[in-house]
Amino acid sequence: MVGGGAVSVPRVSGVLETALYVEDLARARDFYQRLIGFELFFEDARMVALGVPAGAVLLLFRRGGSVEDVAMPGGTIPGHDARGKIHVAFAIPWGELSKWEAHLEACGVAVTSRMKWPRGGTSLYFEDPDGNVVEVATPGLWPNY
Amino acid sequence: MVGGGAVSVPRVSGVLETALYVEDLARARDFYQRLIGFELFFEDARMVALGVPAGAVLLLFRRGGSVEDVAMPGGTIPGHDARGKIHVAFAIPWGELSKWEAHLEACGVAVTSRMKWPRGGTSLYFEDPDGNVVEVATPGLWPNY
Repeated sequence: MVGGGAVSVPRVSGVLETALYVEDLARARDFYQRLIGFELFFEDARMVALGVPAGAVLLLFRRGGSVEDVAMPGGTIPGHDARGKIHVAFAIPWGELSKWEAHLEACGVAVTSRMKWPRGGTSLYFEDPDGNVVEVATPGLWPNY
Repeated sequence: MVGGGAVSVPRVSGVLETALYVEDLARARDFYQRLIGFELFFEDARMVALGVPAGAVLLLFRRGGSVEDVAMPGGTIPGHDARGKIHVAFAIPWGELSKWEAHLEACGVAVTSRMKWPRGGTSLYFEDPDGNVVEVATPGLWPNY
């Protein structure tokens, strides 16, 4: 399918959509909208779309609700669905780390882990209402961050 | 947990990590590295990390391989795991759309759907070797993209 030789690959600009699958859309929407501050772009019985800074979108799908293809005027959106605890990480500025710790505590969200990375960054981990493993991380984690 | 009143939320800069769960790490790594052109940042028996333009990272986890917490010198990485077909979308520049169509065809990857959005953007959908639903999308899709 993908050859072993040199391949000229068209450009990608970045991550646009990252998806989580949840039992209760309204509960998850409130968590990501109120706790993490993302802007509500769209919601229906199947999904919620939340705007993330820097041009990305967090998609929340109701578990079992996006299995089928969806026919739209402009084409068809293929079905997908998942179960389990998915990991997602959001970048935060260094100066916001202590504010995030205080904010999570004030909101009654337990920090399940605090991780110091070899490159100097720090991550806080916590769970969303569906058990998805959410991380907020300062710079100093990956070669590009 | 999260009150209904006005809450001051610390800043998020963007999406840092988006995760997929795959049966065969090497197969998925080759797909995202060779076909989509992401840079290999890290790999071990548990996971592969690939650099995505604009400071994001695509994480591929071996299904069943990241269930347990991982103790590191700097802290503990919480466990997570998922099954199913997860959706992920990558942003592409407008001028790369036809190149992406040609590239996917040349690599023998079927475009499962082509979607024209009300805001003017176009998406191509295809599957990775594990059936995850991958989208590449031009601008003109969401209020922030």
